[in-house]
Amino acid sequence: MSATLADTVDLLRRTPNVVSALLAGVPDAWTNTPDVADGWRPRDVVGHLISAEIDDWIPRAERILTDGTSKPFDGFDRFAHVARDVDIPLDRLIERFAELREQTLSRLDELVSDEADLDRRGLHPALGEVTLRELLATWAVHDLDHVSQIFAGMAGSHDADVGPWKAYLGILLRRDDPAATPA
Amino acid sequence: MSATLADTVDLLRRTPNVVSALLAGVPDAWTNTPDVADGWRPRDVVGHLISAEIDDWIPRAERILTDGTSKPFDGFDRFAHVARDVDIPLDRLIERFAELREQTLSRLDELVSDEADLDRRGLHPALGEVTLRELLATWAVHDLDHVSQIFAGMAGSHDADVGPWKAYLGILLRRDDPAATPA
Repeated sequence: MSATLADTVDLLRRTPNVVSALLAGVPDAWTNTPDVADGWRPRDVVGHLISAEIDDWIPRAERILTDGTSKPFDGFDRFAHVARDVDIPLDRLIERFAELREQTLSRLDELVSDEADLDRRGLHPALGEVTLRELLATWAVHDLDHVSQIFAGMAGSHDADVGPWKAYLGILLRRDDPAATPA
Repeated sequence: MSATLADTVDLLRRTPNVVSALLAGVPDAWTNTPDVADGWRPRDVVGHLISAEIDDWIPRAERILTDGTSKPFDGFDRFAHVARDVDIPLDRLIERFAELREQTLSRLDELVSDEADLDRRGLHPALGEVTLRELLATWAVHDLDHVSQIFAGMAGSHDADVGPWKAYLGILLRRDDPAATPA
């Protein structure tokens, strides 16, 4: 496995453990608040990560390897979780994400064996030509992006409890004003 | 233990596990970049969390319970880690943080047994009167704030690798412009 691919897989393997350490069995008081107004609660974030395991990363890697740039990626529904997960407890979503990630990493290992494959190209319907290397880096950074959103929602759930210390807590200030900086 | 205190302690117990799941043994390629220009790398964040375990939360809780508002908190050096940790490997910092958090939670359990204690007041040198309840909520949100900073640094380490997908990745866009929003 190339160093690039090994680094990416290392991060991708961690994410279910990070999500579980943060959220499994956590009191509801920490998980009922979205990251920003009209944003996502932790359960929405985990649902979106589940959707991407099913419909995004592996189907797009397969499309690149099968069709190159001759057939664009299918669209990806960023809100598929809203209806699908409505009755599913958060702890079950966390387990489901971990199961799917195990499967997608196995599939990735089957799909990509050769360093040269990372330079193969596909066609994103809006972004144009992209490489498999970029897709895999995006998979990892997408994990980091959305898991950090969980932190913002959890912090926001206790916005009213920190009193005057809010002035020092960027994670709370930015929920009100993205450009805010702590005192 | 009151529900408020139990919820706070639940979160505080998680943080060392979250940090370890995310960072222990991770390839250096993920940890050499600060969250923003002139910001903190993951090792700086863990160092700062260590400093706060030593000099901030427990000494301030003790001050509230011993002196009330008659004697302000001592100042807290937000950059104590810079010189102290310069030669210490990241994995050792992660272990040190976990050891200290174990100790501070034991000490908290000794210090605060009565719900009514949470309303006791102390004096912050800049913010004025604060309660023990606010101090403990701030401890938890401070964890969330700084650990989310680790995610930004890790994402930033792969900023150049995602190609055109950067337009969709808020965690990268905000490193360049805090008010940026994904396409």
